Formats: sequence, structure tokens, C-alpha cells
Amino acid sequence: MEHKDFLAMELNKVEEHLLKTLKTRSKMVEASLSDFVKSGGKRLRPALTIIGSTFGDYKSEVAIPLASAIEIIHMATLIHDDIVDDAEMRRGTKTMQSTLGKNTAVYCGDFLFTRAFMLIADMAEVEMMKDLSKAIAFICDSEIDQNEQKYDQTVDVRKYLKRIGGKTAALFSLSIAVGAHKAGCDRKITSKLSNVCKNIGMAFQIIDDILDFTGDEKTVGKPLLSDAKQGIFTLPIIYSLQGSYKEETIKAIERIERDNGESLLNCAVKSGGLDRTKRLGIKFISKATKLKDSLPNGYGKDAITAIIEKQLERKF
Amino acid sequence: MEHKDFLAMELNKVEEHLLKTLKTRSKMVEASLSDFVKSGGKRLRPALTIIGSTFGDYKSEVAIPLASAIEIIHMATLIHDDIVDDAEMRRGTKTMQSTLGKNTAVYCGDFLFTRAFMLIADMAEVEMMKDLSKAIAFICDSEIDQNEQKYDQTVDVRKYLKRIGGKTAALFSLSIAVGAHKAGCDRKITSKLSNVCKNIGMAFQIIDDILDFTGDEKTVGKPLLSDAKQGIFTLPIIYSLQGSYKEETIKAIERIERDNGESLLNCAVKSGGLDRTKRLGIKFISKATKLKDSLPNGYGKDAITAIIEKQLERKF
Repeated sequence: MEHKDFLAMELNKVEEHLLKTLKTRSKMVEASLSDFVKSGGKRLRPALTIIGSTFGDYKSEVAIPLASAIEIIHMATLIHDDIVDDAEMRRGTKTMQSTLGKNTAVYCGDFLFTRAFMLIADMAEVEMMKDLSKAIAFICDSEIDQNEQKYDQTVDVRKYLKRIGGKTAALFSLSIAVGAHKAGCDRKITSKLSNVCKNIGMAFQIIDDILDFTGDEKTVGKPLLSDAKQGIFTLPIIYSLQGSYKEETIKAIERIERDNGESLLNCAVKSGGLDRTKRLGIKFISKATKLKDSLPNGYGKDAITAIIEKQLERKF
Repeated sequence: MEHKDFLAMELNKVEEHLLKTLKTRSKMVEASLSDFVKSGGKRLRPALTIIGSTFGDYKSEVAIPLASAIEIIHMATLIHDDIVDDAEMRRGTKTMQSTLGKNTAVYCGDFLFTRAFMLIADMAEVEMMKDLSKAIAFICDSEIDQNEQKYDQTVDVRKYLKRIGGKTAALFSLSIAVGAHKAGCDRKITSKLSNVCKNIGMAFQIIDDILDFTGDEKTVGKPLLSDAKQGIFTLPIIYSLQGSYKEETIKAIERIERDNGESLLNCAVKSGGLDRTKRLGIKFISKATKLKDSLPNGYGKDAITAIIEKQLERKF
């Protein structure tokens, strides 16, 4: 079987598993969760869990529930993020908070967290529960940081990297590590995989933040500059605020509601902020590539290489 | 040592444990969580965990983290409830969503859930994780039900009981069961304790719902009729809608914003709705008492008796 087919086949099973796991008392909530699953997403995190599992003794019946649990945690964080961000759209469809209201969305997120924990508990994996709990706590911490740093023009690259390390890279890293661990990989390989994916996660978030400036609204599935509009300053703005375009950038931030972010996008381009951001993204990609090279040859390594390469071509 | 002193002493340790466990990166969030802890609450659920543990081989170092985890889960659900309810006040102090904003409050709740799971995972108790996850999922389900049933004048007693069974009684029941289980009690006693506390939980929530009508605003710590004002119809209204006061009750509901619930309170009194609610509360108290009587004599039984008796005198 082709490598790509294997991953696609396993991810299909994750899809079925997700729909099965998300059955609940309220038909309205169930329908909404099922719509959310069907609206897709990149399924990058469950893919990492499956890929991680191939480095050991791959068992579909182990990898699929684990990968599903990871995706469910991710879905829960997205639902809560959308509440916090007042987001109308995600993946080109209406968000749960906009269709069911913030109220139901809060509990749907909580419900998903517990479903994920139940899947993991079914595997009798106490250490994994701890790691997952830590990762979620880390995501929360970073989202809280992001919230506290809103409209703060002194946010620097270090704070930004810490923030995205927590809100994105930690779960990437954990996704592959749980797969590898559960498939019986030793500590050394698990930690190497974890490190590779941490760097992929950093690059992934940086590229996400670039796409928020330069992406195609329809392809990205949500309005552009949505972060900046809520006062979340990502790397292109942070860089833009550092150089000789500082004053212009500050003015562009003030003008964002009126000109729909046009001046700010201009600043990010002219100041070289976007270019510098891209360069940093590429740096993380390179680091991931370098770390990946020392992995044992085989399906898993090829699959990781494909994921790394895909990052640079991402349109959404 | 006096019985009461023992529980007070152990609950003090829970207090310390809570403050220690809730340390986090953001000083603002930590301060806010610590204020929340210090604002008190009845600590009924952790008390049940401690009491449950006394039915087996009581070890403070086991019971305290467990009781803390239970209270943290309860705190998390309160924080998320307050977001959903747009609540300004809780326990006589400002709610987290009103001081830190809904955004931070969403993540604080998530953060607390994960902290609780981490405490349980530290005990290497996989079964307990499953039970806790189920209980939280049950709470979420019931809160979603409550939300879907908003402004629904056809909600009946059965639906109401199912709702409060999930949102309150399930955690009461689990609180004592985890304590008993972890202290080595056998299934029979654990299940009996669980059943007693399920009934206490039902009575507790019914009395809560009565106090929302007849309590003293200052003592209760939040505005009266706050449920009805948001369209949550509890037992006094459900009963009031059943009899010959139906039309008057409907009108009173429509008038609630204008007269601050005065007509609705009148209806609940005149229709006998409040009296019937009280009687049902007492029925659950009696059932709890009866079930409790067959427990082995000793400290635990006395403590449960005291808790049951206290319910009937509750002012908040």
C-alpha cells in the first residue's frame, strides 16, 4: 500500500471514531459536534499520533482511539477559543458559539475534554493522562498570556514564542509522543519525535500567523487580520513595531477598524516584518528537518518529511 | 478530638492544598483563583470525600488531595456556569467572569479541570479518572439540557429531576464514593454511601432552588430569582405552571423584568408550588436518612447525619 493511502485510511478510521465517540444526550449538541467533525480541519495532530505509532509496533486499535482523543482535545480548545474570540467563522463554516450560543459552546468544550480523558482512561494510561493534563494546562496558560498581552505593544519575540510554544507546539509534540510511547518506542526515539514535532508546531503557528495577514480569506476560512483586530499582536506586528516603522505601525493599529487592517498589512510588508516572520518560520522548519534526519529510515520518517515540506506550501 | 473538629481540621488542609495546587504562570489568574478559594463556599463536596474516607482506612495524605480535586472540579463548573449565566455575583463576591472577563474565565475553568485530573492521575487511579470524567460529562449534559429547556413552559418534574440529578447529585454521590473507594471500602458500602449522597444532592439542589425564591439576598450571595430571570424554570415554577395558577404564572414570567419577579414569587406561594417543592425536598431528605440508617455506626454516619440535618436549616 502507498504510504499516503495508509495515513488516509487510518485518518478515516479516526473520523468514524470521532463521530461514534461524540454521541450525547442532546441531539442538538450531537448534531452540532458532528457538523464540526465533518467540517474537517487538517487532522494534523491525529496524523502525528498515527505516524508516531508506526515507529513502534503499530496497532490500529490502539492508535485510532488515541489519535481521536488528541483531535477531541484540539476541538475542545478550538470551541473555547472561538468563544473567547467571539469568532463567527472557522474552517469556512459558522462556529459553535455563533450557532448554539456561547452558553452551550462552553459546556460542549468541557464535554469534549472529558470525552478525551475517558478515551485515554480506557487505555489505563496514567502517565499519559498526566502528560495530557499538563499539555492542556499549558495551552490554557498560554491562552491566558495571550489575553493578558492583548493590545500590549511591548510584547516581544520571546513572549510570542513562549505563547505559541504553549498554545500550539506543546500539543503537536505530545500528539506524536503518545503515539510512539503507546506503540512501545523507547524514551530516546519518543523524545526525538517529540522534539521534531515541537519545531513543526512552532513553524505551523508562525505560518498560521502569516496567513492571517497574507492568506486568501476564502481558503483560510475566516476573515483576515482577525488576530490583530482583537488586539492579539503576532510576529509580523511585533517585528513591525521594532524598527523605524514603529510610529506608523502604532497608527495603523489605531486605524484597524476603519480601514479593515489595510494600513497594518502595509506596515507589516514595508517594515520587513512579514519577511522576518517567514524567515523565523523557515528556521523552525530547518530545525525540524535537521532533527528528523537522524530518525530511523522508513514510513514514519517519510511521513514526517512530507508534513514538514507541506508547511511551506500551506495556503490555510 | 470532637467529630466536628476533625472535619474542620481536614477541611483546613484542603484549603491549604487548594491554594498550593492553583499556582500558575499568570499572577493575575493565580490571585483571582486564590480569591475564589478564599471567598469560601460550603466545601460540602470535599467534606463528603473526607467523610467517605473515614469508612475505610483513613489516611489524610490520600483524602486531602482527593477532596481538593473534587472541590477544584466543582470550582471549574461554577466558573463556567457564571460565564453562561452572565453572573455578576457568587458567594457575595464578584464572579471571575465579571472581574477578569469571560475570556480568561473560560480558560481558568479549563485550567482547573486539568489541575483536578492531574491530582487524580498522581494517585494512579484510572477507574477514578473514568468516573470523574463521566461525572463531568454528566454535569455538562445536564447544563446543556438546562440551556435547551430555557423559557420552555412545558418542562416537567421528571425533566427537572433528571437535570438536577446530573448537575448536582452526581458529583455529591461521586465525592463520597471516591473517598470510600480510595480508603479501601468494599463495593457494598461505597455504593450505599453513593446512594445516600445522591439523595442529599437532590435535596440540596431543590433547597437551592427554593432559596432562589425565598432566601435573603445578602445571605444567599446573589440576586434572588436569578434562575427565573434567565428563563431557567425550577420546581416552584414548574409546579405553579401545573395547576389553576397556570395563566397567572405565565403572565408573571412575562412581567419578571418589570416587577423584579414579585408576581412570580406570589404565584409560587399562592399556587402552593413552593410548598410542594419543599415537600419533595423533604422526601429526598427522608430517603437519604433512611438509607443512611443502615450504615455502620461511627464517626462517618454521625457526620452524614449532621449534614442531612443541616440541609433543612439552610439559609444559603
